[in-house]
Formats: sequence, C-alpha cells, structure tokens
Amino acid sequence: MSAVVVFFLVCLAGPAVAQEVLPSWNDGTAKSDIVAYVKKVTMEGGDGYVAPDERIAVFDNDGTLWTEQPFYFQLGFMLDRVKVLAPQHPEWKEKEPFKSVLAGDLGAIAKSGEKGIVELGMATHTGMTTDEFAKIVFDWFATAEHPRFKRPFNDITYLPMRELLDYLRANGFKTYIVSGGGVEFMRPITEKAYGIPPEQVIGSTITTQYEIVADVPVLRRQPKIDFIDDGPGKPVGINKFIGRRPIFVAGNSDGDYEMLRWVTGGGRPSFAMIVHHTDAKREYAYDRKSEFGRLDKALDEAAQRNWLVVDMKNDWKKVYAFEK
Amino acid sequence: MSAVVVFFLVCLAGPAVAQEVLPSWNDGTAKSDIVAYVKKVTMEGGDGYVAPDERIAVFDNDGTLWTEQPFYFQLGFMLDRVKVLAPQHPEWKEKEPFKSVLAGDLGAIAKSGEKGIVELGMATHTGMTTDEFAKIVFDWFATAEHPRFKRPFNDITYLPMRELLDYLRANGFKTYIVSGGGVEFMRPITEKAYGIPPEQVIGSTITTQYEIVADVPVLRRQPKIDFIDDGPGKPVGINKFIGRRPIFVAGNSDGDYEMLRWVTGGGRPSFAMIVHHTDAKREYAYDRKSEFGRLDKALDEAAQRNWLVVDMKNDWKKVYAFEK
Repeated sequence: MSAVVVFFLVCLAGPAVAQEVLPSWNDGTAKSDIVAYVKKVTMEGGDGYVAPDERIAVFDNDGTLWTEQPFYFQLGFMLDRVKVLAPQHPEWKEKEPFKSVLAGDLGAIAKSGEKGIVELGMATHTGMTTDEFAKIVFDWFATAEHPRFKRPFNDITYLPMRELLDYLRANGFKTYIVSGGGVEFMRPITEKAYGIPPEQVIGSTITTQYEIVADVPVLRRQPKIDFIDDGPGKPVGINKFIGRRPIFVAGNSDGDYEMLRWVTGGGRPSFAMIVHHTDAKREYAYDRKSEFGRLDKALDEAAQRNWLVVDMKNDWKKVYAFEK
Repeated sequence: MSAVVVFFLVCLAGPAVAQEVLPSWNDGTAKSDIVAYVKKVTMEGGDGYVAPDERIAVFDNDGTLWTEQPFYFQLGFMLDRVKVLAPQHPEWKEKEPFKSVLAGDLGAIAKSGEKGIVELGMATHTGMTTDEFAKIVFDWFATAEHPRFKRPFNDITYLPMRELLDYLRANGFKTYIVSGGGVEFMRPITEKAYGIPPEQVIGSTITTQYEIVADVPVLRRQPKIDFIDDGPGKPVGINKFIGRRPIFVAGNSDGDYEMLRWVTGGGRPSFAMIVHHTDAKREYAYDRKSEFGRLDKALDEAAQRNWLVVDMKNDWKKVYAFEK
C-alpha cells in the first residue's frame, strides 16, 4: 500500500473526519454527545446497534428547527390572511378579534385568547380545498418576511439543526417533524427548508371532507379541529402516524415534554435534546416565561433524565446560514 | 464490444426481461398495462415521467393484498379474543353479542349489525397499552389459521400482488397500505407480509391517551373511534398521512371507490386497478352481493374511468405462494 493511500485511510478512520460533521456546532459536549450516540447506534455488532429501519428521529419545528419569535410564523400567516380576506368580510371591521387584527393591535389579539386564535384560524385556514390551501401557503412563504430579520422565513431556519438533520439521514435515520403547527401549513415548504418530504411531517390537523366538484374529487377543509399535535398529543401523533417509537428526539419547549419522555422511555439507546434559546443577539433569549415556546418543566428535568440541553449561544457557531 | 456483451445488452433492453417481471401474472392486458405504465412514469425525459419522490402507490389490504373471505381476518381476531377474555367476563354468557360469539353463532353476530361489531371491537381492542396490543396481535398471527386453507394468515396473501409491490418498489415507488382495517392490527405484520413498514400503513384508528404508569410513559387505547379509513375516508386518510396524491392505486371493493377517484383525478399520469374476485376454486368468487368487499359501483364505472379490472381467475397464474 502506498504511503499516500495509507495517509488517506488514516484520515478517513481518524478523528479528522469527525470534525467535518456538524460544522456550525462548536466543539464541546453537545456536539460530541450527538456524534458519540450516532456512532453507537450505527456500529454493527456493537452493544447499542439499532437497525436502520428503526432509526427514526423526530423534531419539533417552531423554536427547534426555526425561530418562533416574536410569534409563531403560522400566526403571522393568519394575520396576513385576515388582511387579504377583509374586503370580502366588511363585518370584520366591527367584529373581534378581526377588528384588532386589521388595526394591528397585537395586544388585543393576544387578549382574545385561545378562542380568538381558533376563530382567526378557522376564518383563514378552512373552507377551501386542500390544493387551494397548499397554494395559498406556498405563495405566502414566497413573499412574507420575518419582522426582525427582513428575510423569507425559509432563511430563519437554524443552520446547525439542518446540519443535524443531514447528518442523521447520512447515518440511515428517517427524519420527521412532529409539530403543534398545522400539518398543511408546513408541508408545502418542509422539503425545501429541511429536506423532509410531506409524508414525514406530523402536525395538528383540521377535518377535511371528500367532495365532487364538476366531476373532480376534492378535499375541502372544514372549520373543525381534528387533532392537536402538542403536549401529550405528540406521542399520540407519533404512534398514529409512524407506528413505532423513535430513538432520537429534539424539542425546545414544554410542549415537547411528553414527546421527550416517550422517545426516551422505550428501553432502547435513545437520544433527546432541548434547544435552549440563550442568544438574544443572534436570535432570542427566553425560556420559563415566554408566551411562545415556554420551557420550564422540561428544563428542570433535563439533567435527571439525561436530556442534552443545547446552549444556542455557546454551542452554535452560526444560528442562521445568512450570518457573516 | 464482444458478441457476448452485445447479446447480454440486447437481452437487458429487449422484451425478454419484461417477461421476468410479475412472474405469477399471465401474459395479457392486465400485466402489460401495468408494465407499460411503470415504464412510462420512470422513463426520464419522457412525456409521462414522474420524479421518484412523487411515485406513491396505495393499496387496499382486505381483498386486495390478502383474502377477506369468509370474513375479514380482523373479525376472526375479534372472535378469538372474546373467547380468550371470556373467563374474565362471566357476564358475557348472557350478554349479546358476546353470547353469540361464545356459542359460535355467526348468523346472530351478523344480525347484531354495526353496533354489535363495534361493541365487540371495543371489548377486544381497547383498554390495553399500544405495546401490549401489538404483542397480542403478533401472537395471534403466529398461531391463527385461515378456516378454509388451514394456514397462517400471512400465507393467505396474494403472490401476484406481492410481486407487484416488489416491482413498484424496484421502480422507485413508495408503497402504502390504505385500509379500512385497524392500523394497529396491521402494523405488527405488514413488514413481513408485504415489505411495508409500519409508517406506511394507513388505516382506521381508535383514540389513544398518554399516561405515566410507574414512571414509564405509555399510550392507552381508549374505547373511542378516532378515524374510519373507508370510503370517502380513504382520500381523507391519504391526505392526512401522506400529504400528497398517489399516482398508483389498487382496490377491490366499493370501499375503495373514492380512493380510486382521488388518485386518478389529479391530472397526472395515474394508474388504477381493481382486483375482481372471479376464482371460486383457488380463492372466492364474489362481487355485487357480497357481505364483505362488495364491488358494485366501482365495477360499473371501471371501463368509463379507465380503471383496470384484474380477473383473478384468468390474469393470475397463482393466487397464493403455497399452490403447487
């Protein structure tokens, strides 16, 4: 064997290559824990080996794969849709919570509570066919911008997490989104944003109804919630849609708590991580008291349950791809 | 190029190879239509080319991939479970429809109607955790036998359809089951029976609830129907679980009618087939008047909608792998 070949093989086998994975992660415990786990479950013949079919990884979306501040992007979509649809609904000028949306009064919208938000959701997310809704969502993402960063929402995804998705897939994992967000709000863009196809996106659903319109079958979105994929709904959704227990989970809030428990409670080598928002400068800093993505109970129990807490500020070289 | 290589390449390109696919299908329109369609959608640069990601194929299960006579296998499971559980329920001796099940009176069970069947289903399919139920199902399949063929139910799958699943997958299709049957009744065995993993099985679901038992998270099956994946529920289920429209569909009854319409109504090159049960000798012969798998409306409209009707007796060389 020539010296060049030997050198090359040593490079392949040695630690030099490990430093090429997850390039936007700083060297440290977070990165090395992830890499060690992936090595363990992929090493054939090893104690912790998991067959490729069973390598299921689930990721929360809002606050885990992309930003959820100053509000969930789906809420931004909802508010924009109210404005677009307002000319067809003159009654909204006098009717809450629509009146507050049209006046741009975020405080009053928040005060309308869950009831108000559901009302806005139904008015903006239902009545059309599934194909029509997919186009509305797709078109919105093509022009909408994040209020702080003034960039398309696809740019507001976390580069280190996209690298993690790629890294897991390169190691035989099947990557899923398991989000409280509406499944049909996410599906038009997850392939491009994360390399995750529609059939690997689990989320909250509204009821749809099969209809024939001019001899063409359509599914019409009904003003009725079918399933809330949040909190204890996440393990339920995982079981319903995937039908087997994942071994890798990433979340960022108490809405992921039950999913974190479910994935790590299966008696197999599993890995759980929590993205902790600690970087007010590059992104946002929040946890126990945030209106969106509150992280309290899961943070308290992380150490005892051996869940990795990723410190965004210190563990990530870059948050977004567009950073210099 | 040597003569041997040329000969080999000609064989690869020519019709000799086409005769190797779907070996249990007789040569004829059914087989050649399927092969022509698969060639069309996989030929890069061709008019009908469909990218691999979009090659989704959906299959009904009962009567399409395996036998559904003299009754759905899940009903057989249900009746067996009533007998197993009876000692814990002395009241069943006097209570319908349990009394009729214990007496082996199939006619009386049928007379109890949907209400009776749902009652039997809830008594036998709920209360336990999802893990416990998967084990019960798995164990039942390990010992249960088809009443006529006296073989495990995994043997009562259609060999030509298993070949079709393999053939589609070899051509980049992702194959799904979309069945009216219970999803958690199918998932423990679909990988072995059809090469279809749990996450590609869509079916009817009951509600599950997240619970902590002795500090371990479980999902408990509740006596409440969540979703009926039959008739107009099939396109709804496809949209909910897959999130894009399949291009290939196989069914066998009017319960598949809306799914056949949905798949073939998307404006893309699509293929639909109906398995017509015409072989009383090797399997069963039934259609418009059958209690299980009634095929009436879909059969009437098949020609006009260009849906292939597979004549089991004449199109299939073998029905089951165990045939001589």
